[in-house]
Amino acid sequence: FILQYMSGFGNEHVSEDPRCPGALPEGQNNPQVCPYGLYAEQLSGSAFTCPRPTNKRSWLYRILPSVCHKPFKPFEEGHLTHNWDEVEPDPNQLRWKPFEIPKASQKKMDFVSGLHTLCGAGEPRGRNGLAVHVFVCNASMLDRCLYNSDGDFLIVPQQGKLLFTTEFGKMLVEPNEICVIQQGMRFSVEVFGETRGYILEVYGAHFELPDLGPIGANGLANPRDFLVPVAWYEDRQVAGGYTVISKYQGKLFAAQQDFSPFNVVAWHGNYTPYKYHLEKFMVINSVAFDHADPSIFTVLTAKSTRPGVALADFVIFPPRWGVANNTFRPPYYHR
Amino acid sequence: FILQYMSGFGNEHVSEDPRCPGALPEGQNNPQVCPYGLYAEQLSGSAFTCPRPTNKRSWLYRILPSVCHKPFKPFEEGHLTHNWDEVEPDPNQLRWKPFEIPKASQKKMDFVSGLHTLCGAGEPRGRNGLAVHVFVCNASMLDRCLYNSDGDFLIVPQQGKLLFTTEFGKMLVEPNEICVIQQGMRFSVEVFGETRGYILEVYGAHFELPDLGPIGANGLANPRDFLVPVAWYEDRQVAGGYTVISKYQGKLFAAQQDFSPFNVVAWHGNYTPYKYHLEKFMVINSVAFDHADPSIFTVLTAKSTRPGVALADFVIFPPRWGVANNTFRPPYYHR
Amino acid sequence: FILQYMSGFGNEHVSEDPRCPGALPEGQNNPQVCPYGLYAEQLSGSAFTCPRPTNKRSWLYRILPSVCHKPFKPFEEGHLTHNWDEVEPDPNQLRWKPFEIPKASQKKMDFVSGLHTLCGAGEPRGRNGLAVHVFVCNASMLDRCLYNSDGDFLIVPQQGKLLFTTEFGKMLVEPNEICVIQQGMRFSVEVFGETRGYILEVYGAHFELPDLGPIGANGLANPRDFLVPVAWYEDRQVAGGYTVISKYQGKLFAAQQDFSPFNVVAWHGNYTPYKYHLEKFMVINSVAFDHADPSIFTVLTAKSTRPGVALADFVIFPPRWGVANNTFRPPYYHR
Amino acid sequence: FILQYMSGFGNEHVSEDPRCPGALPEGQNNPQVCPYGLYAEQLSGSAFTCPRPTNKRSWLYRILPSVCHKPFKPFEEGHLTHNWDEVEPDPNQLRWKPFEIPKASQKKMDFVSGLHTLCGAGEPRGRNGLAVHVFVCNASMLDRCLYNSDGDFLIVPQQGKLLFTTEFGKMLVEPNEICVIQQGMRFSVEVFGETRGYILEVYGAHFELPDLGPIGANGLANPRDFLVPVAWYEDRQVAGGYTVISKYQGKLFAAQQDFSPFNVVAWHGNYTPYKYHLEKFMVINSVAFDHADPSIFTVLTAKSTRPGVALADFVIFPPRWGVANNTFRPPYYHR
Amino acid sequence: FILQYMSGFGNEHVSEDPRCPGALPEGQNNPQVCPYGLYAEQLSGSAFTCPRPTNKRSWLYRILPSVCHKPFKPFEEGHLTHNWDEVEPDPNQLRWKPFEIPKASQKKMDFVSGLHTLCGAGEPRGRNGLAVHVFVCNASMLDRCLYNSDGDFLIVPQQGKLLFTTEFGKMLVEPNEICVIQQGMRFSVEVFGETRGYILEVYGAHFELPDLGPIGANGLANPRDFLVPVAWYEDRQVAGGYTVISKYQGKLFAAQQDFSPFNVVAWHGNYTPYKYHLEKFMVINSVAFDHADPSIFTVLTAKSTRPGVALADFVIFPPRWGVANNTFRPPYYHR
Amino acid sequence: FILQYMSGFGNEHVSEDPRCPGALPEGQNNPQVCPYGLYAEQLSGSAFTCPRPTNKRSWLYRILPSVCHKPFKPFEEGHLTHNWDEVEPDPNQLRWKPFEIPKASQKKMDFVSGLHTLCGAGEPRGRNGLAVHVFVCNASMLDRCLYNSDGDFLIVPQQGKLLFTTEFGKMLVEPNEICVIQQGMRFSVEVFGETRGYILEVYGAHFELPDLGPIGANGLANPRDFLVPVAWYEDRQVAGGYTVISKYQGKLFAAQQDFSPFNVVAWHGNYTPYKYHLEKFMVINSVAFDHADPSIFTVLTAKSTRPGVALADFVIFPPRWGVANNTFRPPYYHR
Repeated sequence: FILQYMSGFGNEHVSEDPRCPGALPEGQNNPQVCPYGLYAEQLSGSAFTCPRPTNKRSWLYRILPSVCHKPFKPFEEGHLTHNWDEVEPDPNQLRWKPFEIPKASQKKMDFVSGLHTLCGAGEPRGRNGLAVHVFVCNASMLDRCLYNSDGDFLIVPQQGKLLFTTEFGKMLVEPNEICVIQQGMRFSVEVFGETRGYILEVYGAHFELPDLGPIGANGLANPRDFLVPVAWYEDRQVAGGYTVISKYQGKLFAAQQDFSPFNVVAWHGNYTPYKYHLEKFMVINSVAFDHADPSIFTVLTAKSTRPGVALADFVIFPPRWGVANNTFRPPYYHR
Repeated sequence: FILQYMSGFGNEHVSEDPRCPGALPEGQNNPQVCPYGLYAEQLSGSAFTCPRPTNKRSWLYRILPSVCHKPFKPFEEGHLTHNWDEVEPDPNQLRWKPFEIPKASQKKMDFVSGLHTLCGAGEPRGRNGLAVHVFVCNASMLDRCLYNSDGDFLIVPQQGKLLFTTEFGKMLVEPNEICVIQQGMRFSVEVFGETRGYILEVYGAHFELPDLGPIGANGLANPRDFLVPVAWYEDRQVAGGYTVISKYQGKLFAAQQDFSPFNVVAWHGNYTPYKYHLEKFMVINSVAFDHADPSIFTVLTAKSTRPGVALADFVIFPPRWGVANNTFRPPYYHR
Repeated sequence: FILQYMSGFGNEHVSEDPRCPGALPEGQNNPQVCPYGLYAEQLSGSAFTCPRPTNKRSWLYRILPSVCHKPFKPFEEGHLTHNWDEVEPDPNQLRWKPFEIPKASQKKMDFVSGLHTLCGAGEPRGRNGLAVHVFVCNASMLDRCLYNSDGDFLIVPQQGKLLFTTEFGKMLVEPNEICVIQQGMRFSVEVFGETRGYILEVYGAHFELPDLGPIGANGLANPRDFLVPVAWYEDRQVAGGYTVISKYQGKLFAAQQDFSPFNVVAWHGNYTPYKYHLEKFMVINSVAFDHADPSIFTVLTAKSTRPGVALADFVIFPPRWGVANNTFRPPYYHR
Repeated sequence: FILQYMSGFGNEHVSEDPRCPGALPEGQNNPQVCPYGLYAEQLSGSAFTCPRPTNKRSWLYRILPSVCHKPFKPFEEGHLTHNWDEVEPDPNQLRWKPFEIPKASQKKMDFVSGLHTLCGAGEPRGRNGLAVHVFVCNASMLDRCLYNSDGDFLIVPQQGKLLFTTEFGKMLVEPNEICVIQQGMRFSVEVFGETRGYILEVYGAHFELPDLGPIGANGLANPRDFLVPVAWYEDRQVAGGYTVISKYQGKLFAAQQDFSPFNVVAWHGNYTPYKYHLEKFMVINSVAFDHADPSIFTVLTAKSTRPGVALADFVIFPPRWGVANNTFRPPYYHR
Repeated sequence: FILQYMSGFGNEHVSEDPRCPGALPEGQNNPQVCPYGLYAEQLSGSAFTCPRPTNKRSWLYRILPSVCHKPFKPFEEGHLTHNWDEVEPDPNQLRWKPFEIPKASQKKMDFVSGLHTLCGAGEPRGRNGLAVHVFVCNASMLDRCLYNSDGDFLIVPQQGKLLFTTEFGKMLVEPNEICVIQQGMRFSVEVFGETRGYILEVYGAHFELPDLGPIGANGLANPRDFLVPVAWYEDRQVAGGYTVISKYQGKLFAAQQDFSPFNVVAWHGNYTPYKYHLEKFMVINSVAFDHADPSIFTVLTAKSTRPGVALADFVIFPPRWGVANNTFRPPYYHR
Repeated sequence: FILQYMSGFGNEHVSEDPRCPGALPEGQNNPQVCPYGLYAEQLSGSAFTCPRPTNKRSWLYRILPSVCHKPFKPFEEGHLTHNWDEVEPDPNQLRWKPFEIPKASQKKMDFVSGLHTLCGAGEPRGRNGLAVHVFVCNASMLDRCLYNSDGDFLIVPQQGKLLFTTEFGKMLVEPNEICVIQQGMRFSVEVFGETRGYILEVYGAHFELPDLGPIGANGLANPRDFLVPVAWYEDRQVAGGYTVISKYQGKLFAAQQDFSPFNVVAWHGNYTPYKYHLEKFMVINSVAFDHADPSIFTVLTAKSTRPGVALADFVIFPPRWGVANNTFRPPYYHR
């Protein structure tokens, strides 16, 4: 089983699981009867009325509608919060020590139970803000999936590989890669040992490629290098119950259903999970003298409504040539 | 007594109570002595510096200035709140059961005492957010009026007629009509039996007609069909005291004065209450295949500062022809 | 030989001719040595500095660079002009009579020699304006290709099929389909009999899908239904000379080279020719009463710099249900 | 016969000739049969797709459709041009000498035959530019009307009154008043002696009230003081023929019909002619020291697409108090 | 010792302490070795990626980097808060009584210990909001400085002079002057007796000069009249320890270092403290009739992201001529 | 005599000739009597109503007003044109051969008589377009000056130094430097031998520093490195007449006066000539692999009204390190 991907940031992708050719309706979204008797479902990633460049949605053709589940109930796992007043503010610069991963032999911990919130600002209800979480885990998620009702997850694995099964297909993410799973997309995480990483969550805006200004039409993260999974489904009854977990207003809730939610046979649209390998970042920098500001290493940005001001940027410090003449070697002091 | 209205959404209207012809000053707003010795007062509905399309204000010519009242004191009636953390979040879809209206014989309840907040987000101090309230009442407001210092009320009567007396004149609103009474406008409500309805409140933005894009210059709610009251005043001393109630930062406050606040003899401006009959909505929809998103039924929208993203939309599902070919009859599943 | 297409309006597409797997460089655009010794060439469709939604360019990997040709010389064929003062203005409504197609037995005429300008406004040098042309032809273009240095061609076949060979691959366009070939893209046209159609040319802006406003995330021309050719090349020496024709400032020029310009083995980018079948247009219209303005049938729009004002719109009148109650049957009179 | 007006710049007005009450259809624009058997006609003043603040159109309900006329033919009267290269440029400051008005006894001249172009820039076909004309006349227009297909006329009478009959009603304009008659609106001019004035014509933009910035919600020309005619019609057959004159691409054309075009019984909309009395201008200026730039006397502005840059401004120097301390009395020297 | 200033709001200033000529590197910001062995440090006043008009930063060349201090610890002085729910809301109009200044003989109080928060809205973490503080003091700050990590201070002295020493130089501010010290700039305050004043703090936006609209290119506060200090440094060891105080998330924190932070020998940039004398305000107002809205007296504005809506305006009522005819003398009543 | 400059792109500069201290009025622009009896004159570089970032004007205090001259007359020198249809279009890439400079001994030629237009687009009357000129000269301008009424000159000396005397002061520009002299600024050119260079002229927009996007707050041409002359005047009667030459609508005109126009004793404002040394350009480029588009070398840009699309860019190819790995050495092929 080899994982395949389609390329292109923000493309209008189309994908069918090859086991069901023709599963995607032709020329319309809502036929009276879909091929194979599937259910058509739209997953919206933006207000319906957004202009084209920010209008995001996908159409999923699935075996059973996603609404077929029992009511959600509060769910006590992990250590998530969005109450930023819990801890007193501290103006000192902080570095986080490496978070310890429990041994699987001592305590099984999966991606959900291993979530910890580090810090944040704003709140999901007001559709403005961000949070930083870590995850530590040693076990795969078993008959359960997560989705985020509050915002988008940008996931940065630090140790160990993550195999994501999503409603859009499967995606393997290794250290030095990142992936983004957006609001409302169900996913389950398989791991292969002790695994750790960071999550940057944003509320109210999606990640975009930054406008490049004078850099021109190519450079930094090129849109071609973003990879999107291909349709994959399982038609699986789960007698013991499948648990759908929702992060909603900063808290977890769980609902039971008796089938796998990864039953999407075909889909099309521009609202999908995606991944990116950081080695493909085309680094731009000073080639005569002086340093550039670190914004020059921006991979993805979630814009605020003030021009030029981001809600959050994801920035890397990639390997590169340093060739500035007569320039202080470390970057400048900065406040 | 027949109620009259002027038409035109957002027009610069002019109106005089016919009992006082010439009450409106000609060619200026602030004459040294106004006709009939009235007091000129500007009611601002936006920052002074807003560009024309969002700049809102009206000039009221009244018998006594509206500032002539005793200090405001906290006022314990109704069940309003804007503390959204009072109730735990719940990700399940909710439908509200019909709210029970008390019998007038058991307990007199007017529009103010019968207010209940259902839910909301954001807060009025930050000028960003919304709330949903219900009102249930069986009695008219007697020698008291309300105004909202926090935002605008879009009022949807569900059962029973509402006769609004406002500083701008009188307005009768029946089920299948809606009305909007904006920040700072005083009004009193007469009812004619058991009465119930919804209120959508927005902070920091006024309702607008949506831009129509390809729909063109006509369609959905046409601006011509919005009706505005004509000037009406009473010059009435209220020996026992008239109570002016203010909703301020989500709470009620009351001040006493000894005259009716509905003493505006003439006014002009583009900041007024208005009503609309939902039957006049020109419905647009798919006429070949597939469903359109429900945004196509938007009557009024309160814009956020993100293009295409509303703070709140008021959307209806009007009677219409459904003629799409080869299309699933109920609208699509949607998340 | 079956023609294949990729779908998605404005996508970042990638394509390799299957005869040369791996022809597309991985992870960069300009390797020191490209696979198969190809030449990398960027074709820009916008200023380098445009923001993402309007930034257009593609990378072509070809056997010989496109600059390998002799100088351009004036070329007298067809009947193109952009001197709008040649004909006196006429305020009457005009309908064009069908243009006669010469018999192939009498006079061979290909796509270039059969071009006639009907009307226009503005001029290509100022990057603002449009022109309408017709083409009538009865023969395929032989060892010659055309490209437009002035703007984009939206081509509407009226009679006869057109097989386009472009630098991006092959595209068959039949009546009831349209295609767009943008500034700088070389193409050659094969026909299969008497052929006629219209061309809408725009200078200074590309065609876009209109923003939909309240119509929502789906409707009118859906982005998924636009088709883009897949890479196809020929490595062909042309002893007798291959003629590259350029439309430049409204006139034709020709240059000779000794190989086919359709030597692009692989390409990627978001600046490509594309086609669309008009049957896939999801028609939206009035479903209660009254007519909507014809802008509701807009397929593609080329925007001016005034919000809501197009340089040119391409609008169709598709088959649809007409269900408005109590409404005058033909559309309204309109000035 | 007393002329009446409605007030409010850019309002959605409604008007019926009182001889035909109920002529305006209720709740829709296009009934199957209009009241009194009238014809519904939309007159568009902007692209259908403009956003609300710039979307302009009116609905006219008339006895016969306006398209019932014979073809237009070139028409040689007046001295209009838009060929700005006819005269050599001259960088010196110019003042125009008063234009002589011929005596009616010598030569009858009406508003159309007395038109002379002074200067201009840009051109109507490109929807960008302006022209300045004068008119001198001594006779009323008899059984003929004019409309401008190129842009809007802002008319400034200098000597003599002008009585305009338009499709929207009648409007009397005297010196110290101005009026605006926009693209496509038919009008006829009655004069009462020797009459002269200026016309500022703009192509591609309508006049607007300027945004006021810190001046606030009131001041300069107040929207309330703009007056719009009320509906008036004549149902008049013209045996000898009625001449409709069109200014099209800077030239005049004429078409014959056998009835008066002023047959609009009722109308509604926000695209209308209007007038304004310059005495109502609320003058703002320096009240401590120094002079303000003359832009502070702007009555109406036609915006270009560069923020803050007008296509044309109409500016007056009204009577006002000059109270600046320690300031050079005439305004500053300026280049 | 005479204080000197440079002029020009938002200029790219350059300044060297005259004791160290050539301290500013030529042609670059980050030489390998700075003149005099200074340390280059960038102080950012905006996101790196802001467009030019809002991009703010300065380069400081100093004896020791500003990061050389011990960790920050909570610091209990003054009476600052940003918890706006501490006090119940009150819809009545409030005037603050004059705040009493303690006698120096009874209790020494400097600028920091004499800070009191009056009111506010929003919060610094969300980069949106404002606060109003008062300061009362009778002693100079001794071996301690303050900087605001939350936003900008606009300081209005009411009684007594303030001598500011800042990283950019010295600035004397007297009653009838105002000064602005922006986020992150260290300053110390010397006073000369009992001193009192107001502070307007804004989070998330800097103060700007308002766009003037029709007022034109000159008027209100002219950019030329804003004064910026010139570079001044002290190379002073502080054996007993120098205390750097930071206002962070509405609370104070303090860190110790053993040298004066005012060790900046030269600097350049457009992010600086500045002052303005209110007498230089060029007052504009009505010169015919009626009053203008008070926005016409705006000195500085901090913009929100809604066009025309300010986060906070600083407005004055300067001496001026009142010359309106036939107008009520006090300004209009206003709600 | 050493030339001095002030620094800072677009600053609000102030400057007095040191021979007349206090020549600049304090706290106002238009005193009743200026210091030294000078005349105040405003030179506007933009519409009065432009928003702050594009609002340009300077105040000049001079011995005699600049309007004191005789009328302009056509002036036959140089070879300027803006009739782009004079030469047939040519789609081939062109390089211009070096233009020959006549020997001074054979023919005296100054900056004005040595002007030749190469090419262009658009036109000054429409405030949109550009032209490219060369100048060749061997003599200084004697008792004559030039100003451009059509647009701005960006002057690039190729051989020989240019000493500009302007109304704002003196400026020496050598090869590897550029200078910009904007619309309406009078200047005279001294040369020191055979001199040649290019001129880029833009109509309707001024040159700006490009927004840098991810490059951040520093880089490319830094604003600090732009130099502006200091005030310098001569109070010189010219008995034989001083010739003021104006370029107006692409042609030259001349007027006589009897004094030197360089009589500005002091000035302040943000509309000035300026120069820049290209060595100070902080070069940014690829430091890992691939090439960046040449927009990354933009020094100055004149913006069109389409976001990201320039009317004209001034771009250089400065010395820099080329360090990209595995990348084709010359830049990519490009169309």
